[in-house]
Amino acid sequence: MDTWLNLISSYQCISSGVGDTGTACLPAQPAVAILGSGDFSKCLTTRLLRCGFHVVVGSRHPKLAAQSFPHVVDVTHHEDAVGKASIVFLAIRREHYSVLWDLKHLLEGKILVDVSNNRRVNQYPESNAEYLASLLPDSIAVKGFNVISAWAMQQSCPKDASTQVYICSDSVEARQQIMELARQLNFLPVDMGTLSSSRDIENIPIRLFPGWKGPVLAAVALSIFFFAYSFVRDIIHPYVKYKQSDFYKIPIEMVNQTLPTVAITLLALVYLAGQLAAAHQLYFGTKYRHFPHWLEGWLQSRKQLGLLSFFLAAVHVLYSLCLPMRRSERYLLLNTAYQQVSVHANVENAWNEEEVWRVEMYVSFGIMSLGLLSLLAITSIPSVHSTLNWREFSFIQSTLGYIALLIATLHGLLFGWKRAFEEEAYRFYLPPSFVVALALPVCVILGKVLMLLPCVARKLHQIRRGVDSSHYRCQRLEPVGSAAHVSPERVTIM
Amino acid sequence: MDTWLNLISSYQCISSGVGDTGTACLPAQPAVAILGSGDFSKCLTTRLLRCGFHVVVGSRHPKLAAQSFPHVVDVTHHEDAVGKASIVFLAIRREHYSVLWDLKHLLEGKILVDVSNNRRVNQYPESNAEYLASLLPDSIAVKGFNVISAWAMQQSCPKDASTQVYICSDSVEARQQIMELARQLNFLPVDMGTLSSSRDIENIPIRLFPGWKGPVLAAVALSIFFFAYSFVRDIIHPYVKYKQSDFYKIPIEMVNQTLPTVAITLLALVYLAGQLAAAHQLYFGTKYRHFPHWLEGWLQSRKQLGLLSFFLAAVHVLYSLCLPMRRSERYLLLNTAYQQVSVHANVENAWNEEEVWRVEMYVSFGIMSLGLLSLLAITSIPSVHSTLNWREFSFIQSTLGYIALLIATLHGLLFGWKRAFEEEAYRFYLPPSFVVALALPVCVILGKVLMLLPCVARKLHQIRRGVDSSHYRCQRLEPVGSAAHVSPERVTIM
Amino acid sequence: MDTWLNLISSYQCISSGVGDTGTACLPAQPAVAILGSGDFSKCLTTRLLRCGFHVVVGSRHPKLAAQSFPHVVDVTHHEDAVGKASIVFLAIRREHYSVLWDLKHLLEGKILVDVSNNRRVNQYPESNAEYLASLLPDSIAVKGFNVISAWAMQQSCPKDASTQVYICSDSVEARQQIMELARQLNFLPVDMGTLSSSRDIENIPIRLFPGWKGPVLAAVALSIFFFAYSFVRDIIHPYVKYKQSDFYKIPIEMVNQTLPTVAITLLALVYLAGQLAAAHQLYFGTKYRHFPHWLEGWLQSRKQLGLLSFFLAAVHVLYSLCLPMRRSERYLLLNTAYQQVSVHANVENAWNEEEVWRVEMYVSFGIMSLGLLSLLAITSIPSVHSTLNWREFSFIQSTLGYIALLIATLHGLLFGWKRAFEEEAYRFYLPPSFVVALALPVCVILGKVLMLLPCVARKLHQIRRGVDSSHYRCQRLEPVGSAAHVSPERVTIM
Repeated sequence: MDTWLNLISSYQCISSGVGDTGTACLPAQPAVAILGSGDFSKCLTTRLLRCGFHVVVGSRHPKLAAQSFPHVVDVTHHEDAVGKASIVFLAIRREHYSVLWDLKHLLEGKILVDVSNNRRVNQYPESNAEYLASLLPDSIAVKGFNVISAWAMQQSCPKDASTQVYICSDSVEARQQIMELARQLNFLPVDMGTLSSSRDIENIPIRLFPGWKGPVLAAVALSIFFFAYSFVRDIIHPYVKYKQSDFYKIPIEMVNQTLPTVAITLLALVYLAGQLAAAHQLYFGTKYRHFPHWLEGWLQSRKQLGLLSFFLAAVHVLYSLCLPMRRSERYLLLNTAYQQVSVHANVENAWNEEEVWRVEMYVSFGIMSLGLLSLLAITSIPSVHSTLNWREFSFIQSTLGYIALLIATLHGLLFGWKRAFEEEAYRFYLPPSFVVALALPVCVILGKVLMLLPCVARKLHQIRRGVDSSHYRCQRLEPVGSAAHVSPERVTIM
Repeated sequence: MDTWLNLISSYQCISSGVGDTGTACLPAQPAVAILGSGDFSKCLTTRLLRCGFHVVVGSRHPKLAAQSFPHVVDVTHHEDAVGKASIVFLAIRREHYSVLWDLKHLLEGKILVDVSNNRRVNQYPESNAEYLASLLPDSIAVKGFNVISAWAMQQSCPKDASTQVYICSDSVEARQQIMELARQLNFLPVDMGTLSSSRDIENIPIRLFPGWKGPVLAAVALSIFFFAYSFVRDIIHPYVKYKQSDFYKIPIEMVNQTLPTVAITLLALVYLAGQLAAAHQLYFGTKYRHFPHWLEGWLQSRKQLGLLSFFLAAVHVLYSLCLPMRRSERYLLLNTAYQQVSVHANVENAWNEEEVWRVEMYVSFGIMSLGLLSLLAITSIPSVHSTLNWREFSFIQSTLGYIALLIATLHGLLFGWKRAFEEEAYRFYLPPSFVVALALPVCVILGKVLMLLPCVARKLHQIRRGVDSSHYRCQRLEPVGSAAHVSPERVTIM
Repeated sequence: MDTWLNLISSYQCISSGVGDTGTACLPAQPAVAILGSGDFSKCLTTRLLRCGFHVVVGSRHPKLAAQSFPHVVDVTHHEDAVGKASIVFLAIRREHYSVLWDLKHLLEGKILVDVSNNRRVNQYPESNAEYLASLLPDSIAVKGFNVISAWAMQQSCPKDASTQVYICSDSVEARQQIMELARQLNFLPVDMGTLSSSRDIENIPIRLFPGWKGPVLAAVALSIFFFAYSFVRDIIHPYVKYKQSDFYKIPIEMVNQTLPTVAITLLALVYLAGQLAAAHQLYFGTKYRHFPHWLEGWLQSRKQLGLLSFFLAAVHVLYSLCLPMRRSERYLLLNTAYQQVSVHANVENAWNEEEVWRVEMYVSFGIMSLGLLSLLAITSIPSVHSTLNWREFSFIQSTLGYIALLIATLHGLLFGWKRAFEEEAYRFYLPPSFVVALALPVCVILGKVLMLLPCVARKLHQIRRGVDSSHYRCQRLEPVGSAAHVSPERVTIM
């Protein structure tokens, strides 16, 4: 009869017992067993007790272990503990799963919750939960709760209710039951499907920014390239040619030349990915064909690329604003003043209307594009993002994003102005770095213009609506409007 | 018997079946029917299968459609599909609802979930779900899931568990049942009441920042006004009077004059709304009288007005900080240096103690008010907001907000200083734009002072506590303390 | 029989009634009683009705009160209302709980939900809910819903579904039942355990940034100290010694000297707490010994200390960037230019290579440390924080945080440069304030270096893994990997 006492039914029994002042229903609190008596076990016990469960802890040395558990907890031998509950948490390391072999017959048909974590990503050929399932094929293995630290488990702090717990199992029923248990323990369960997801779930708490690896590497590589390029043009060239030592420019001027070039390149890369996806769809005439692997990865890195671009642009602004504070700048200013006086230059001549306009314009374009990028960055904050519908998100990330790219490109073009066409700008026959940096953004903007041409736009729209040549041509019941969201535009945005 | 197999009972059956190793209860997985075989249908199927449901898809061409569904899915004719489940999802367009007429008798008593969206806000006289309900009065129409894109439906990504799904229906039971289904599919259901909310729900995924329309229009209108005002005074006036061309001032100086004036006006508007609401309550002596429509809208736009004000203020800071980088500024500096030397001016005389103090003070007040406004902006981030209780939110948005307005006003006053009283500042008899811009903030601050007078404050407090003359005077059981929160102070804050 | 009609069972009845078109089950909507007819009562009624509950309101003057409730609501006398439901909400003030005495026998065995709030923290010796429980020992007191304002209660707005409601009760069953009710009302219930938590729950809506009190006081105290220190050295000293009035330096220069010193001290305090905790563990050789009270509080204030540090650092940057805009700065520049010309100084001599390098380096270190600190601040936004696993959070807050502290210290050292060793810098025998400010950060960095020494690091790791000398030495089933999270490293981070 004991095995009948499963979690859900007991819970309902309790609930219905309140109306008649608790006499109709025996105090049939659901019992949960935990094998292992370490920190995680202790904290899980605390949480289970607080939520009204009866806890049985299985330990090799029950007498010793009992000292560190509350008195209401039944600390006993493994065999004993397992017999008293239908849900068994395994708060032991993978290396000791072999001891479960002795309990094989007792664990038959029970739900075993594997909460273990590894030290490294993909440490073992199969996940801990799959290893457990293969060891005890007659039990029902469920992976879950491993993302909760023992510390968080113990908390009754308000923010708990939105702490997510990932759960997977090959048994739909067991999964639903453990999800319900998680809900009762005040977590937000997330259904991750079959046990094959357990590897992903085990990797969650030990991953280190997997989505950022590619974008950060791209940013670092671009930074090294543009820094080296500037170094050759601006430090090596004057040193070789005029024996002039400009090494003091490295910490600020060179960095401040590298930052905007990398930032605008990253921003262009964000939108290039979407254009390549659109080209792929146009070429194959369908949205149902998968993108190549590298493009898929690139599409999914756009948020990170965009945020890195914003970060570098913001730092670039800080560097630029620091220029007037610098001693070297003041020296140049004083020197100019001195020379004007010494040579009795007419100061009025120093007023160059074109130069004044150029500076005013490129400064204001720079501010505008930073303002727009900051809007894009703010909508990347998860809780802001979740208040936007798809249309709003797309407006910010796609429409405003392209405008930001356009304005940033104009900012760069105005900064360069006629210098791109002066012969002396081509030191060592290398074009100025802003020319190199602006090539890609200009291409991406032209690509966007191309995609806005009515004929291309119409074709793309048709493909993304699902009205392509091969599928369901004669279908009378068409897909609903929201189906259009499967289009890569969904991912075309930062 | 088939109709008895509803979702909840089946689920419970499954759950209780685990304890006795799954033999006591037949594999009675709840069946859900989906009419239509488009993208949304496919993605919904994927999600349902993953969460343990049995799915029957109804299609006009079952053989053709079956190719693009997993093998476990029963793809069949509409009639057949409908007969196998008590919950039927309609993944077809509104234009094809008429075909449901033929299935009228089969759909009797079933729950029909309308997931459709329109292309435009309020496209049809009645919502799709209400149209469905009028078409099939013997079925139970439920609106829901339309905010989930087909793409998001397919995901098993972690953040799903907090994706909200809005559900409404005239049948409370059907609503609860579909909410439970949504929860099992790992969404966060939101109860939106009766089917009359379906129009709102259908508008959610196609709205485009409805709450921002008014505030952005206000900001644009104010910007145009102040820009034109400055243009007349600072560009036209010197041109007409002294034939001096100052057009180069447009991109930076004029913009940087417009930005702070608009920002402080918007901030004043935030608090003016609350004061008008308070005046309304004082005038009518009760908080139970509705505010006029325009005031209600204004009160609800305060957050947006405040955020726009902060954004403009931040951009104003950027513009101001860029001043020393500009060529025109350097020219002026060099020119001054040159003149001092040329005319042998005693540089010591250039030290104007009052001017130095004025600049130091207005700069530091500007920084302070930006710092305070940034605190207000940060607490507008949804997830930060939700960690604050009402008292904390009110402290930040109301108390700190008024202090920010006060300091910003002082910043403006110190910037203007004595220039407001100089005759030459009144070009074309127009006062300087900072005088115009400061009029409203000064009024709002005076209004706040008025409201803090003991007699007014006490009266307001009484009204907001609900102790007004007309209601429940002799009531012994008074409302609880938290009831005071209904006061418009709740909305009096940015 | 009436008492049998409890919430859960009725709800299930409804649910299962849908399949057979609603005839198998009587319309047994669960009835909920509310005592009191104030604002909160009205709004709770609205919400309950919308979610399909039957509501009975108890009032002293039912006829009068009925006017302000919807017609479907049964407004009646207290005795009558209480008899019709098993769950009774008390929407009355604590001061009127005495009237419940008369209903004592009617309330026996019922669940009484106390939703009341107080005006001040810890206003009464015992919490309202505990007072209620002592008054009516035969009823089941549950505390809850007090954090929801009447205003929020009335809303059907989308963000509701994630509004948290804290619930506690000595009866596990009643708690679970009210949590289920909260979920049905579209709130996110948080289980707070036994009724002894009711004081905490009652304090939630009236607390005012309790976690910020200590850190803000620390920041204010440090600010006053460093400001006074600078005042004596930079204003009093020149005034006393040279009769030079530098009071104009107060609003910007002095503030800008105080801000970075306080910011870096606060940042050092963040990491000092973690080091003291580690020292405590090393000294006692175990992680199971509690930290002293003051250290516990300090450890829990690190997030706030870090955010204050970032805020002050950001304001410091703004102040610094404003320097070139200031009239006093321009005066100095012009004066220098004038003097150079007057004395025919060779401007080339003004170029001091070392000084140029120093300025370039300290400016760039300053920007870098602000950039890193901004990353730390962003990950403190709750919704960003919740997307990070423990390892990622620890990388940002601990690793990047220490790097930020290191770079900020270098920024300070380079700013000071050789001035720390010049005799004239010691005005009134006081060292420059940057020397004072850098003492603590340098100590903390040295402390970190010490803790990274292999012997110390290994010892610490062992202690935090739980492998200490006293516990479970012979244990075969060790705690799982995640148990390592209980270590104070969990809290060692900002």
